[in-house]
Amino acid sequence: MVVGGGAAGMSAASAARRVDPSLPIVVLEATGHAAYGLCGLPYHLSGVVEADGLFSYPPDYFREKRGIDLRFGAAATGIDLAAREVTYTHDGRVERIDFDALVVAAGGAAGLPPIAGLAGRRVFTVRTIEDNSALRELLDAKAVRTAVVVGAGYIGLETAEALHARGVATTVVERLPRVLPTVDEPLASLVEAHVREHVDLRLATDADAALAEVDPDVVVVCTGVRPAGGIAAAAGAETGPGGALLVDERMRTSLPAVYAAGDCVAPWHRVLGRPAYVPLGPAANKTGRVAGTVAAGGDATFAGVVGTAVVKVFDLEVARTGLTLAEAREAGLPASATDVVHKSRAKYYPGVAPLHVRLVHELGGRLLGAQLVGREGAAKRVDVVAAALYAGLDVDDLAAFDLSYAPPYSPVYDPLLIAAQAAQRAPVPA
Amino acid sequence: MVVGGGAAGMSAASAARRVDPSLPIVVLEATGHAAYGLCGLPYHLSGVVEADGLFSYPPDYFREKRGIDLRFGAAATGIDLAAREVTYTHDGRVERIDFDALVVAAGGAAGLPPIAGLAGRRVFTVRTIEDNSALRELLDAKAVRTAVVVGAGYIGLETAEALHARGVATTVVERLPRVLPTVDEPLASLVEAHVREHVDLRLATDADAALAEVDPDVVVVCTGVRPAGGIAAAAGAETGPGGALLVDERMRTSLPAVYAAGDCVAPWHRVLGRPAYVPLGPAANKTGRVAGTVAAGGDATFAGVVGTAVVKVFDLEVARTGLTLAEAREAGLPASATDVVHKSRAKYYPGVAPLHVRLVHELGGRLLGAQLVGREGAAKRVDVVAAALYAGLDVDDLAAFDLSYAPPYSPVYDPLLIAAQAAQRAPVPA
Repeated sequence: MVVGGGAAGMSAASAARRVDPSLPIVVLEATGHAAYGLCGLPYHLSGVVEADGLFSYPPDYFREKRGIDLRFGAAATGIDLAAREVTYTHDGRVERIDFDALVVAAGGAAGLPPIAGLAGRRVFTVRTIEDNSALRELLDAKAVRTAVVVGAGYIGLETAEALHARGVATTVVERLPRVLPTVDEPLASLVEAHVREHVDLRLATDADAALAEVDPDVVVVCTGVRPAGGIAAAAGAETGPGGALLVDERMRTSLPAVYAAGDCVAPWHRVLGRPAYVPLGPAANKTGRVAGTVAAGGDATFAGVVGTAVVKVFDLEVARTGLTLAEAREAGLPASATDVVHKSRAKYYPGVAPLHVRLVHELGGRLLGAQLVGREGAAKRVDVVAAALYAGLDVDDLAAFDLSYAPPYSPVYDPLLIAAQAAQRAPVPA
Repeated sequence: MVVGGGAAGMSAASAARRVDPSLPIVVLEATGHAAYGLCGLPYHLSGVVEADGLFSYPPDYFREKRGIDLRFGAAATGIDLAAREVTYTHDGRVERIDFDALVVAAGGAAGLPPIAGLAGRRVFTVRTIEDNSALRELLDAKAVRTAVVVGAGYIGLETAEALHARGVATTVVERLPRVLPTVDEPLASLVEAHVREHVDLRLATDADAALAEVDPDVVVVCTGVRPAGGIAAAAGAETGPGGALLVDERMRTSLPAVYAAGDCVAPWHRVLGRPAYVPLGPAANKTGRVAGTVAAGGDATFAGVVGTAVVKVFDLEVARTGLTLAEAREAGLPASATDVVHKSRAKYYPGVAPLHVRLVHELGGRLLGAQLVGREGAAKRVDVVAAALYAGLDVDDLAAFDLSYAPPYSPVYDPLLIAAQAAQRAPVPA
């Protein structure tokens, strides 16, 4: 039994099938869609992709080719541990279904914050195909001239870019005095300045005030997601950061025969050394695969995350991995940051652009994280540091990496090497 | 004393200056240029950059700002170890200069192979600014309609692209039945097909035959470089692969007070576990820095290379790190290769292109190398594997890396993860 037909749930179901070709596998999915990439929703809004393109496979592929009993409109409502049954609603009826092993892959939920000014407005979140498609239809019908996006995190900025691309006069309103809390302020400031070149950005601003002033045709609320693993928590499963389900490396919850995966769990964070809630696509797919493998009797483990993420914000690539300086200090680590600005290519090569690199590290020691911002060269370069973090390496190791060089792709000293050299020179307290 | 004013030599001189602000530092450079990026020479031919743009700093910067006695037209001819003197020629005179510590950074030499048909032709190599500028002047004067490039390695293909960009009808002739011996044949075949879309490529062909048939206006010989550390070898320094100088991690040769760096040394290869001759820009800069630091009384070490390199071949990025399957087998390692073709971006994102990935690994175990070929996403992605090789990681580790994902930059499973998953499934012999 799998609760949830998103990336994690369908990864779990498919992995279970690979372990056991004859195992009965049921997936309960509350909506009418399965196995779609949530991260593509802003690009569906902008018109880059049609809804069909967001699916990894169509539903019948899972049903017919993989023998998975995928049920749409089936919303799980409870777990009866003693009976090993899941209760769910389907076409208005309450149904029960038993399981030998259960994978809770209920995802994350985009809650609406208590904003009085939302009342009576057309309000959307960028979280489900249904919701997203409704907004896309309005855009296609040219029924949206003005929009307010609430929230300036990843999804808020991606959504603002998408609306701007559709010719919508867009205002982004953010309660905090900054964009992208996932990077430190010096890099967020670069992003902020770039966003202001394209849309109206209001920081440290109350959404109600902006809504009253702008009176937009639509409001898109992008204030983050909360883990939606409530049915497991209600059955007694232990939870951790943000209420996410706690799991071990085999995705076992604290309940017998109940596994969990995806945006409803807090996976192990290798740099923090404890679970953390970082709901992102790659970990959803990977944890789903592990949960399904183990639930079906196979063996697999999830090595954890290091906090890698990247977002395109108009013409900027904004990438991070590990811990920001703020996160490291919050975790009580003796962290320092080293900032450099270098180049994405050889200085003379057409297309060269500045690349801002911040390394977060213990002085004279362990790498804790990196952030990169630039018009090119940030997105995949951050993965080099993600690899270093996985291996628990030091600043000296990063400085010694044998990174590729050719004038179209990098200066002879890659920006990461320049940053590592600068971090090596950072004074160590006596 | 530094012999050679290229990337390694000037890195050594600058590093020595940082260690000791008052140390007398002399650099002997045979040509009239210093501190230039050899890797930029094909882009100088193509017109992307003028000669001035190839220098990291102008000569007077080193002389005036860094107090380095940089002497042009000074060709070192011998080392008198007993007297601690270097002999060199300057304006036709033989001079002697003494040293406390000597860094041999004599670079690599592009030798002309014994090709009878070169006699009487305008022949160039892409190795010095002088030679390159002479060819560039002919191109600027539109005096070159046809060219033969001898050699289909990195420089040969870059040069062919540059000549093609200048409107020259270009024939590339290669003795071997394939291009780019630095990648395995399946990937080289992709490159070969792409090269043929642009220029006349003749493999397994004798240069004389092609020269007689084409009768080109110019010939550019790109048949590789040999280490040019002869003066140290003549003084008794131990040499290794290809005649390159052997050094320890502090760039000390076997001779007292004599260090070496750059394209004349064989640095430690971390994957092979022995010295290897891999003359590339990043290691030249890094080994120069270490040699100069240690020679001046400081301390530094070079961690070695893992064999990372990238080249742009027309519209393809071709990247490699570690060992090819051929190299691994030649080294007696129980190596296998896993090939996948995945995508550079989310399948629906504009600009998405196929990315070919080959992982070379011990079955069920240690990563040995990677090769990537595609229109985008190869150059910096290879660095993730370079990081894994530095750390001595396994295929399982690579599969567990937390790599960045957003639709414009990667599929949700990065192509490297897909390749690692495929390598995990490769059958292990019983």
